[in-house]
Amino acid sequence: MRLSTTFVKTLREAPKDETAINGALLTRAGYIHKEMAGVYDFLPLGRLVIERIKSIIREELSTLGSEEVSMSALQNPELWEKTGRFDDQEVDIWFKTELSAGGILGLAPTHEEPITNLVKKYVKSYKDLPFSVFQFQNKFRNELRAKSGILRGREFLMKDLYSFHATEADLDRFYERVEAAYRRIFERVGLGDCTYEAFASGGIFSKYSHEFQTMLPVGEDTIYYNDDKTVVLNKEVYNPEVLADLNVSEMRFSETTGAEVGNIFKLKYKYAEPLGLKFADEENHEQTVYMGCYGIGVSRLMGVIAEKYADEKGLVWPKAVAPYQYYLVGIGEKGTRAAEKIYHGREKEIIFDDRDLRPGQKFADAELMGIPTRIVVSDKTLESNSAEITDRMTDETKLIELDELFR
Amino acid sequence: MRLSTTFVKTLREAPKDETAINGALLTRAGYIHKEMAGVYDFLPLGRLVIERIKSIIREELSTLGSEEVSMSALQNPELWEKTGRFDDQEVDIWFKTELSAGGILGLAPTHEEPITNLVKKYVKSYKDLPFSVFQFQNKFRNELRAKSGILRGREFLMKDLYSFHATEADLDRFYERVEAAYRRIFERVGLGDCTYEAFASGGIFSKYSHEFQTMLPVGEDTIYYNDDKTVVLNKEVYNPEVLADLNVSEMRFSETTGAEVGNIFKLKYKYAEPLGLKFADEENHEQTVYMGCYGIGVSRLMGVIAEKYADEKGLVWPKAVAPYQYYLVGIGEKGTRAAEKIYHGREKEIIFDDRDLRPGQKFADAELMGIPTRIVVSDKTLESNSAEITDRMTDETKLIELDELFR
Repeated sequence: MRLSTTFVKTLREAPKDETAINGALLTRAGYIHKEMAGVYDFLPLGRLVIERIKSIIREELSTLGSEEVSMSALQNPELWEKTGRFDDQEVDIWFKTELSAGGILGLAPTHEEPITNLVKKYVKSYKDLPFSVFQFQNKFRNELRAKSGILRGREFLMKDLYSFHATEADLDRFYERVEAAYRRIFERVGLGDCTYEAFASGGIFSKYSHEFQTMLPVGEDTIYYNDDKTVVLNKEVYNPEVLADLNVSEMRFSETTGAEVGNIFKLKYKYAEPLGLKFADEENHEQTVYMGCYGIGVSRLMGVIAEKYADEKGLVWPKAVAPYQYYLVGIGEKGTRAAEKIYHGREKEIIFDDRDLRPGQKFADAELMGIPTRIVVSDKTLESNSAEITDRMTDETKLIELDELFR
Repeated sequence: MRLSTTFVKTLREAPKDETAINGALLTRAGYIHKEMAGVYDFLPLGRLVIERIKSIIREELSTLGSEEVSMSALQNPELWEKTGRFDDQEVDIWFKTELSAGGILGLAPTHEEPITNLVKKYVKSYKDLPFSVFQFQNKFRNELRAKSGILRGREFLMKDLYSFHATEADLDRFYERVEAAYRRIFERVGLGDCTYEAFASGGIFSKYSHEFQTMLPVGEDTIYYNDDKTVVLNKEVYNPEVLADLNVSEMRFSETTGAEVGNIFKLKYKYAEPLGLKFADEENHEQTVYMGCYGIGVSRLMGVIAEKYADEKGLVWPKAVAPYQYYLVGIGEKGTRAAEKIYHGREKEIIFDDRDLRPGQKFADAELMGIPTRIVVSDKTLESNSAEITDRMTDETKLIELDELFR
């Protein structure tokens, strides 16, 4: 991408109402635009980061054989009334709206009810199980407060995965495979060293669920961890009863804050029962399907990565999620000509800062945008037929011969 | 994809309330699932068709240098009040909802207001113009009736493109380039021979807009065309005054129905003025930005393609938008082994019907799903080391040597 042709510009100052680091820096660097608290547009660079994260998630979920669908936001209350979840007392973050033709609709805050109902059409016998389905889809949650940039959205992109099984043992096995896939995902996006699987509250059919918590000051959850972080608990289950249950009463726990980037849940019969998702087993007896659900907040994940790596100069993207790998600056006439040559054919990897600005301003923008590698070619570097390479994460600088640049 | 592992199944009968061919066949073939009238989920095959169409649109729009963004559905009324369009008397298809924190929000039926406001942040001088921005995004329209399958959605996927110019001449030039890109898009998705650019009503600043109308019985618009279809008009502008204005009063016109698959509109100052999108020209005088907007109904386009090509056996996809290129059936033990070999490494091109069913049932599903090329390998075809290839569109069948299959 040529910076001279993009419509977005970096901003010197963050809007005053952006108190979270992610919201302030992503806005200044031109990745997002705020429509209102908790509601953001993704500009070209921001959209690319989201796409990178989606690709990584897709790759890891494909190892589970999950099939991708795309479900609607508009929801028919009928399904949700069967589970009691259309009631605002039960689920207090609904956006509801009126249909011209009559009746109330909801905007999906999650999709357990509609996916359960959808698969009923196809599940008849044990031979139709197991399988899993996922989507990337915008969820709507009518949050009272939303002040954490893209960490807590009223409209936000989520990856939600649902699995369907004939037996509890099969659900358990799949759950473990999802745990492993999630660990690989968080590792690949650069959060492996600060993201932990935490015990959280379960529900009717399961004692516990698991959350993937990234330990960060900006996190809105309170979590407790033992010294070597092998046992991590959400505050909601940090009590003597649970500690005894988990056999960790003797351990010393510290408190910190976490941002929940994923959660996984053995639903078992929770939705299958009220919605009537049954199958005939090998003896032709009717059985209820076991379900699991597994979420990752995709736009939140982008915000968490931004928060984790940001420094005083701006954003710092791990290579795997960076919108572009290189930020290219040519200095002087010869440097600019050489930069044009380097750029040619690599439009999808390189942000070419071909604007009529001083190098210092370009360097500041390269840092603010957090592009992993800065390439500078100038009369001076060209004397040795080289370019100067600077790593945004380590700040290391070195000269590399032009021929070796992309080796 | 192996049919034995997908959770979706073809259905013998369409739901009774699916009166449109596209809704009925897409449901039976497992491409979509209806949540309610005008609201559909896209199942794995349906999602792939949407992705194929998006790729074609992206490719053609990239020739215009347009940048891709992703904007929110939730809308702040403030912006829309400036143009008068939050008023239900003015725009009668709003879905509105209440924010817990107080106030009414809308669900975007289109995005002129927010995009105009967004780019205000970046447009200061004539040097910042021209540029264009597009997105693929779900629109919400509170339609009183929605009985045409995915042709008229209450929630539907749209590609919307907005352009920004310093002069009217520049807008005109860009408009023509979009017209050409749209013609290529409709050609590539298989609608070139029945899609026409029609005059439609303009607005405050333009006499006419243009619609791309696909002439089909299912179309909800009434259009008029002259004998050689060089002049096509929407009913709304089919009157003596317009015919005189266009100098076509003498022509003979026939009436038919059209499905509007795209529209393009010279907005000029319509939104830029009330929302204050200005720039400083070369003499540093403040000027208003000229705008254009250009839509394509992506999910509708899928429905229109389905309607156009469907026959008594089911769907028929043009290769460019088909979810998979081949439907593979192995008959007998040897045939099945050979099919496994053919399938290997081509999982993204081939639907492998490895289910334990009679060949006749598999052939019927191949036809219902509308996959362009059916490949059958059996003991008999293997005698000549060949496979039988059947073209879904022409019904032509021939034997091809296995080595030549994908040449």
